[in-house]
Amino acid sequence: MSHPHPDLTLPPPLPAGGLRVVPLGGLGEVGRNMAVLEHEGRLLVIDCGVLFPEDNQPGVDLILPDFDYIRDRLDDIEAIVLTHGHEDHIGAVPYLLRLRADIPLVGSQLTLAFIEAKLKEHRIAPLTLAVREGQVEQLGVFECEFVAVNHSIPDALAVAVTTAAGTVLHTGDFKMDQLPLDGRITDLRAFARLGERGVDLFMVDSTNAEVPGFVAPEREIGPVLDQVFSESTGRVVVASFASHVHRVQQVVDAAVANDRKVALVGRSMVRNMGIAAELGYLKVPDGALVDIKQVENLPDDRVVLMCTGSQGEPMAALSRMANKDHKVSVGAGDTVVLASSLIPGNENAVFRVINGLMRLGARVVHSGNAKVHVSGHASAGELLYCYNVLRPRNVMPVHGEVRHLVANAALAVKTGVPADRVVLAEDGVVVDLVDGRASVVGAVPCGYVYVDGSSVGAITEVELKDRRILGDEGFVSIFAVVSSQDGTVLAGPQIHARGVAEPDDVFDAVLPQLTQALEEAVRGGATDSHQLQQVMRRVVGRWVSGRLRRRPMIIPVVVEA
Amino acid sequence: MSHPHPDLTLPPPLPAGGLRVVPLGGLGEVGRNMAVLEHEGRLLVIDCGVLFPEDNQPGVDLILPDFDYIRDRLDDIEAIVLTHGHEDHIGAVPYLLRLRADIPLVGSQLTLAFIEAKLKEHRIAPLTLAVREGQVEQLGVFECEFVAVNHSIPDALAVAVTTAAGTVLHTGDFKMDQLPLDGRITDLRAFARLGERGVDLFMVDSTNAEVPGFVAPEREIGPVLDQVFSESTGRVVVASFASHVHRVQQVVDAAVANDRKVALVGRSMVRNMGIAAELGYLKVPDGALVDIKQVENLPDDRVVLMCTGSQGEPMAALSRMANKDHKVSVGAGDTVVLASSLIPGNENAVFRVINGLMRLGARVVHSGNAKVHVSGHASAGELLYCYNVLRPRNVMPVHGEVRHLVANAALAVKTGVPADRVVLAEDGVVVDLVDGRASVVGAVPCGYVYVDGSSVGAITEVELKDRRILGDEGFVSIFAVVSSQDGTVLAGPQIHARGVAEPDDVFDAVLPQLTQALEEAVRGGATDSHQLQQVMRRVVGRWVSGRLRRRPMIIPVVVEA
Repeated sequence: MSHPHPDLTLPPPLPAGGLRVVPLGGLGEVGRNMAVLEHEGRLLVIDCGVLFPEDNQPGVDLILPDFDYIRDRLDDIEAIVLTHGHEDHIGAVPYLLRLRADIPLVGSQLTLAFIEAKLKEHRIAPLTLAVREGQVEQLGVFECEFVAVNHSIPDALAVAVTTAAGTVLHTGDFKMDQLPLDGRITDLRAFARLGERGVDLFMVDSTNAEVPGFVAPEREIGPVLDQVFSESTGRVVVASFASHVHRVQQVVDAAVANDRKVALVGRSMVRNMGIAAELGYLKVPDGALVDIKQVENLPDDRVVLMCTGSQGEPMAALSRMANKDHKVSVGAGDTVVLASSLIPGNENAVFRVINGLMRLGARVVHSGNAKVHVSGHASAGELLYCYNVLRPRNVMPVHGEVRHLVANAALAVKTGVPADRVVLAEDGVVVDLVDGRASVVGAVPCGYVYVDGSSVGAITEVELKDRRILGDEGFVSIFAVVSSQDGTVLAGPQIHARGVAEPDDVFDAVLPQLTQALEEAVRGGATDSHQLQQVMRRVVGRWVSGRLRRRPMIIPVVVEA
Repeated sequence: MSHPHPDLTLPPPLPAGGLRVVPLGGLGEVGRNMAVLEHEGRLLVIDCGVLFPEDNQPGVDLILPDFDYIRDRLDDIEAIVLTHGHEDHIGAVPYLLRLRADIPLVGSQLTLAFIEAKLKEHRIAPLTLAVREGQVEQLGVFECEFVAVNHSIPDALAVAVTTAAGTVLHTGDFKMDQLPLDGRITDLRAFARLGERGVDLFMVDSTNAEVPGFVAPEREIGPVLDQVFSESTGRVVVASFASHVHRVQQVVDAAVANDRKVALVGRSMVRNMGIAAELGYLKVPDGALVDIKQVENLPDDRVVLMCTGSQGEPMAALSRMANKDHKVSVGAGDTVVLASSLIPGNENAVFRVINGLMRLGARVVHSGNAKVHVSGHASAGELLYCYNVLRPRNVMPVHGEVRHLVANAALAVKTGVPADRVVLAEDGVVVDLVDGRASVVGAVPCGYVYVDGSSVGAITEVELKDRRILGDEGFVSIFAVVSSQDGTVLAGPQIHARGVAEPDDVFDAVLPQLTQALEEAVRGGATDSHQLQQVMRRVVGRWVSGRLRRRPMIIPVVVEA
C-alpha cells in the first residue's frame, strides 16, 4: 500500500495499450464521485456526482468534481456511465452537459429517469442509452458489461470495462443484502465469472470498510415500522431520503397494514416517488396515498406523513414541524420516525430537531434507539466476500475519506492481494494499468469547484476564508471623504460594524484618534487613498483588538471628492 | 411526566418552609450546569459552568448561565457548591465572582485546586471551603452532606441538601464504575442510607440516559493502550481531555511499561496534570516525564506525546501535526490514539484530523476502532440502580438535552416513581418542593449569555444572525458622497464586496443604474441620507439577487459633504 504522495507531478503519456484511471472526485471525500478511464485516446466517465459542503465551506450550495482535466477533451468522451441515481453520482451531470450536451448517458431505467427529471429542470434533453444487468455494450473502445448490485436505491449497477489493457470492475456503490426487498441481489455469480476470466483492476466502494461484519437486511426494518405504527395513537411522521424507494415501500406497507393513509411531503420526495411508482419500482395499493391537503380531514391515527428533512435541514418539513412552523402540527401522542442515517456533521442540526419534537411531546424513534435504518454500503465482511470471489490482480479503493480508503486497502491485503498491487489514490492521482499492473504515475490538478447561487467555480478559498472571518468575527467598515486637492478630511470618518459585540456608537471613542492619525498622515505626505486606508485599518484594528479582544474584518474606504 | 410549558409565567412567592429550585443552565443542553436552591430567602448555588457554542453560534467563545435571576440577590448566596472540576461545572465561576467576589466556593480538594488555578488567571483570590466525602457542612440554612461519586475526573461529589422542606440529592455528573482506578466508587451505601431517611427530590445526571446498559470500567482501557504502545514502532501520540487524570495515568503506566517517556503537550494539559501530580491524584514515577523539547533527542520508539486536541480543535497540537504544522512530525510507523469521545458537532473536525494523520501514513486508533474511551456518565442500567436504591419521592432529571431528560424521566417512571412526581424542566423553569411534592410553578427569563472576546452578554441573537448571514453570503457595501446643499452625487457610488462569488468590478455593471436611481430620488425630493441609502440597498439588492442568486448583506452608506 503506497500512500498518495503530495509531491506527485504531471503524469507521462499513457503507454500504448494501457488504460489510465483518473478519479476527479470521491477519493478523499464522501460524494462527487467521478472517475475518468482513458484508452487509446478515448475517455469513459463513470458517475458524475455532487458533494455537499462541510461547515468550513460556509454558504456553498454544492461542490462539483473538477472538470479541468477533461475540459479540452470533451469530444473524446464516449459516454457517461451512471451506476445509480443518487445525487453524489448523478448530481453534477447537468454541469458537465453544459460543456457538451450530447455526451451519451448510460444507465439503468430508474437511474436515467432520475437524471432526466433533473436535467429537465436545467432544460437539457440528454442522449441516453438504457441498459440492464447482464447487458454488454461496446462504447467506443470500451466494452462495458453491466452487473446488478444491491444498494439503497433500486436498479444500481456495477460496470466491468474491458479494453486491450484488461478488465476493470467498478462497483459503484453497493452492499450485499442477501434478502433484498426486490429480490435483486448483488450478482456474485457474475463477479465469480469475471474473477475466473480475470479482473485486472477492482475499483471498490470503501464507505463502510471501517465497519466490521455485515449490513442487516433492509427487510428487517419493516416489522419495526409496523410495530411503531401500531403503537402510535396519533399521527406518524416518517423522515427518510427522497430516493430510498425500498424504505418508502416499507413505510407504505406498514401504513396499509395499520389502516393509515400516506401523504408524501417535500418536492424531491413527491417527484422521485412519482417516477418510481410510474416505473413499477414502488408499489402503491389503490387509495394508499393521499394529498397533504387531505391530512387535516383524516383522524390523526389514520395518517402517515412521509417526508424529507431527516438530516435536520432547517427549511425541510420536519425541522419546521419541530419549530411549530408547519401547517402539520406535531404533539403529544404523535410519533416521528427518522428512518435514516445520521450523516457526520449533521448531528447538531438533527438533535435540534429531535429535541424540538420531544419538547412538543412527540415520541421520536431513530436509528439510535430502534432498528429503523440500515446502511446502503458493504461492510468489511461483505467486502471480504468480494475480494475472495474476484481475486483481483490490482485493487483501487474508491468512494470514501482517506480513513475509509485505507481500511478498504487493508481488507484487500488481508485476502491475499499483494500490498504493492493495492493503489491508494486521492482525487487527481493518475493510475495507469499497464501490462497487468496498476500504479500511480502522477497527478493532475484537481480542486473543489463550488456552486454558489448561480455561480460555478467563482467562489474560491479566498472568498471562503473571508466568509469564515465574517461569520466568526463580523466586520467594521470605516469611511472618510478627503479633498482631492489637499487631502483634508471633508466628511467622516464614519464607522459601521455588523456582527461585533458593541453598538456602533462605541466606535465614537476611536474617532478623534482616527481623525488625528489621518491628518498626521496627510501632513506627512500621504496623499493617495490607499495609504490613508492603511492608516485607518491600522488605527481601528489596534483599537478593536485591544477593546474587544476580537479581530473583525476591517474595510477602510477613502473617497476623494 | 409533564413537559415544560412555553407559556409559563413568573412564579408566585415561595410558600414558607418550601424549597425552590431554579436551573439556570444545563437543562436542555449539555453544559453550563448551574442550579439555584432557595429556602427561607437564602440561596445555594450548585455548579457554575460554561457551555461551548454550536455551529449556529459562530465566533462565540463561551456561553454562560444567565445570572439575571440572582443578579439582585447576590448577597443572599450562602455558597457555590462545585461538584467537580470540569469546565461545564466550574468555568463560569470567574464571571459570577466578578459580581460578588466573596461568595464561598465549596468543593473537594482537586475541584478547588482546578478552580483556583483558573481564578488566578482572572486575578481573583476566592474564599474556599474544602470538603471530603462523608462530611456534613451547615451552609446557612442548607445542611450539605457530600457523597463520593465516580466520574471522568477524580474527587467528584454529589451533594445532599437538607432543609425544613426535605432533602434534595444532586448527583453532579457521575457514573458507577465498580472497579475504578482509584478505588473511589460512587457511594451506594450513602445513597441507600439517604434513601432510607427519605430523599424528597432527586436531581440526577441525564447525559447517558438514552444509552442502554452499563459503562465499561475505565481500567479496561489500560491493556488496550499497552497493546497499542507495544505494537508501535515509531512515536505514539495520545490525545484526550486535559482534566482526565485517570486516562492520563493509564497512558503514563502504559508508557512506563513499554519503556517510553511521556511529554505533556498543551497548556491546559501541563497545568492540570501538574496540579494532579502535586496533590497525589496522578502518580508519575521518577523520570517518566520529559519536556517536549527533549523529545527530539529520544528515539521515536521511546516517546509518548500526551496532548489535547482530541475534538479536532484547529489550533491544538494534534490538528497541527495532521497539517504538518507542528514541530513534532508524525508519519509512517507512528501511532496516534484518540482516547476520547467524539462530542456531537465535532465530527467533521475530528475526521479531518484523522484523515490528515492517515494521509501522512500514521496508524490512528480511536473509539470507533478500539476500546480507548469510556464515558464518564451513568448509562440507563446504572441509573436504574440509583432509582431503586434511593426510591426518591420526586425526580428532576438534570444535565442534558431534552432527549436525555425525557429518557431519564422514563427510567424513573419504570422503577415506580409516579409519573406526576417526575418533573421535566428546562433552564429557567421554577420547581418548588412544598409539603413533599415537587412541581413546576412558573419560569423566569433565562437566556444565553455569550462571551465573545472581552465582551460578556453584548453579543445577542441579532449579532449572531448578522454573522450567519455574513458567513454564508458575504456582504456588499455601497457608498456615495452627496452634496449637503442640493443632494447631487459628489463622489461614488462605489461598491465593495467580500465573500461573494464575483470580483468587485462585476459591480461596475450596476453603477449607472445606481447613479440614475440616486439622481431620480434626489429629483423626487429625497434628501436625507437614510432615504438615499434605502434606494441604494434596493437597487443593488435586486441586481445581486438576479445576477448571483444570493442574498449577501447589503450595507449602503451615504455621506454628506
